[in-house]
Amino acid sequence: MQLRKPIPIEKAVELVMKNRLSGEKEKISIIDCDNRRLAEPIIATNDIPSFNKSPYDGFALRSEDTLNAGENNTVTLEVIEHIGAGVLPTKEIKSGEATRIMTGAQIPAGADCVVMLEDTDTFSKDGKSFISLSKSMESNQNIIEKGSEVKEGTVLVEEGTLINPGVKALMATFGYSEIYVAKKPLVGILATGTELLEVDEPIEPGKIRNSNAYMVASQVLRAGGIYKYFGKLADEFDQSYETVKQALDEVDILITTGGVSVGDFDLMPAIYEKLEANVLFNKVAMRPGSVTTVATLNNKILFGLSGNPSACYVGFELFTRPILQKYQFNKNPYLKRTKAKMAMDFPKANPFTRFVRSYITYADHGTLNVHLAGMDKSNVVSSLAHSTSLMVLPGGTKGYQQGDLVDVLLLDDIEGQAHF
Amino acid sequence: MQLRKPIPIEKAVELVMKNRLSGEKEKISIIDCDNRRLAEPIIATNDIPSFNKSPYDGFALRSEDTLNAGENNTVTLEVIEHIGAGVLPTKEIKSGEATRIMTGAQIPAGADCVVMLEDTDTFSKDGKSFISLSKSMESNQNIIEKGSEVKEGTVLVEEGTLINPGVKALMATFGYSEIYVAKKPLVGILATGTELLEVDEPIEPGKIRNSNAYMVASQVLRAGGIYKYFGKLADEFDQSYETVKQALDEVDILITTGGVSVGDFDLMPAIYEKLEANVLFNKVAMRPGSVTTVATLNNKILFGLSGNPSACYVGFELFTRPILQKYQFNKNPYLKRTKAKMAMDFPKANPFTRFVRSYITYADHGTLNVHLAGMDKSNVVSSLAHSTSLMVLPGGTKGYQQGDLVDVLLLDDIEGQAHF
Repeated sequence: MQLRKPIPIEKAVELVMKNRLSGEKEKISIIDCDNRRLAEPIIATNDIPSFNKSPYDGFALRSEDTLNAGENNTVTLEVIEHIGAGVLPTKEIKSGEATRIMTGAQIPAGADCVVMLEDTDTFSKDGKSFISLSKSMESNQNIIEKGSEVKEGTVLVEEGTLINPGVKALMATFGYSEIYVAKKPLVGILATGTELLEVDEPIEPGKIRNSNAYMVASQVLRAGGIYKYFGKLADEFDQSYETVKQALDEVDILITTGGVSVGDFDLMPAIYEKLEANVLFNKVAMRPGSVTTVATLNNKILFGLSGNPSACYVGFELFTRPILQKYQFNKNPYLKRTKAKMAMDFPKANPFTRFVRSYITYADHGTLNVHLAGMDKSNVVSSLAHSTSLMVLPGGTKGYQQGDLVDVLLLDDIEGQAHF
Repeated sequence: MQLRKPIPIEKAVELVMKNRLSGEKEKISIIDCDNRRLAEPIIATNDIPSFNKSPYDGFALRSEDTLNAGENNTVTLEVIEHIGAGVLPTKEIKSGEATRIMTGAQIPAGADCVVMLEDTDTFSKDGKSFISLSKSMESNQNIIEKGSEVKEGTVLVEEGTLINPGVKALMATFGYSEIYVAKKPLVGILATGTELLEVDEPIEPGKIRNSNAYMVASQVLRAGGIYKYFGKLADEFDQSYETVKQALDEVDILITTGGVSVGDFDLMPAIYEKLEANVLFNKVAMRPGSVTTVATLNNKILFGLSGNPSACYVGFELFTRPILQKYQFNKNPYLKRTKAKMAMDFPKANPFTRFVRSYITYADHGTLNVHLAGMDKSNVVSSLAHSTSLMVLPGGTKGYQQGDLVDVLLLDDIEGQAHF
């Protein structure tokens, strides 16, 4: 039997992430851009607002006409035009004149302020419209100046950012009807194990259904990738080798689940050898997922994840997810790590760094609590459904008590962070 | 001009949410289930494990055979069979016998424990295989018992839950090759405003590009819906009325952006009247979004959101998002609300409840901080791109200082909560 030397988790992550798996770009319509990552920054293509505009319904006028206005001195102005939003003013305002203006409309030439509708009285006389007001206005009062919100040329959103509703609004505002986004990395998935039944097969003695392939497919989608499922490898070498080799040709990244333990029937180490892949590591000082193996071949990466569902899940989130994020130009490719208070005791000692399936709650006073998502047996699949975080309990620690502050990795977080 | 009476935000949310907009179900393949919401619970269809199995590579044997084993007393057993994972044992173990067993394989009849591979020595003699061990085993030692993880019939995940990788793994484990999920609600989107340019039109004096329709479309997708964009209403009554009426026939919910302010060119109030829609409210004591109008007609809901981008955004998140979640059977349809510490001063007084575009950071000691996402002018679109939360500053408060604890609504949170 082969002896394996476990490497620290930080080292393992580093070995994966220093691979030059460069992402590609593609141009898509603004219609299809949701949840994609930008492959170019969004830059203001014009000033916002692109003209001086009114923040209120009211009247645009010359402030100098109101210099002497006050409680006992009403000023009367003739209304010479009526501008809706999107309609351009055609008349320049001269002394003694005003223009009715709607919220968002362009300030007419000659005017330097806007008086709010409710601060005026209106009346008609001899077929002409007038307003009277009894307060004096200042120059620039109630005017939103051209470029006061955003100056043309400003970088508003950086490359690598996920397109959310606010980003999409900016794209529309600045005329990005098409945009370069990161191409979605294509991930191949292969399951190993003769004990695996397909999801629509009835349960049989000695067998379990293949849940890992479906789970990993969902993790790939959550990480912004797309996947191709190549089915189940037989526990037979030559045929399996050919399947892996052909799958590798089609994808950017290949994930296998199972077949990486040290045991009589474990295939993957032999396949890596025959492929002449460069095995980065085949054992990590962590639980679960210690048998995770990662290898590279011709600018592609092979992830040999454990056949154990929880170990498979954790291996993906720690090693595969960040490289998929990097591929999509995300400058914060790692899971967001924060601190949270343990909501219960965890007396178990941690000879190796342990990643515990857990979920976060928000307590009063703006603090985070972290709870176990289920029994911490690596073979229990049910707790994964309720996990929103992984607690990180460093190797060498002797157990934790309720109230202890621990690191947690947030699984549903979008923002991420720059370092593991 | 029409006088409008603002109602409290809590009352407005309640009026929207008590509508009986009942969601529909549809059956889909497990392949397509990601990010859908369950319309049925996931129930364990068998025990897990479905047989007694081994947690280790090793040998299954009868513990009574090892009663006297110890440092000075080696026990030798004949290996009668060799079982891989997924292969069924065929031989019952009798006294003096053992079976080689892999991780996850079924325990053969007769055996009641598993000794780990590393605790044994193996040898061959006369063409037969043997192990020797020098420690005594207990009954049930290293056996994962049938049903010890999950009992058949247990409800594992409730209706309304979002399908994440863990939920999908459970579906596969229990043979849900198809499942009922909530049908995605269809939301119609209509923009109003002659000042609006389409995204691919060059910028013109007095005009702005239509960003609200794109933004709202993205918000609909984030809330789990699908949308149909019906284009831009002209500022002309009869034609606009017909467009709204026809759009309503096709959708579950209709959103219009703009046209709800009190002003000469505002269309929507007149359209609601002619439709004989039941206007739930047309003014809310909040900033931004005070002119948000919501009406019902024949079990459909019309959301008249403001034409101002930030007001439109906030109106959607507060009123439209939760009803879309309810439609999808989510029992926690409201935005997750928690407390966070203000990272800066906010000296402005809040005559009405103010929702401030903001983002969250995680500080040491497991606490949340909240930061302004940009200038708090409701006409500034750029800050929406960087918002991950809305600060809630209650009406009647006189300004806040750095370090004050305030409520925040988390925009990217998946879990939600049961009350506003």
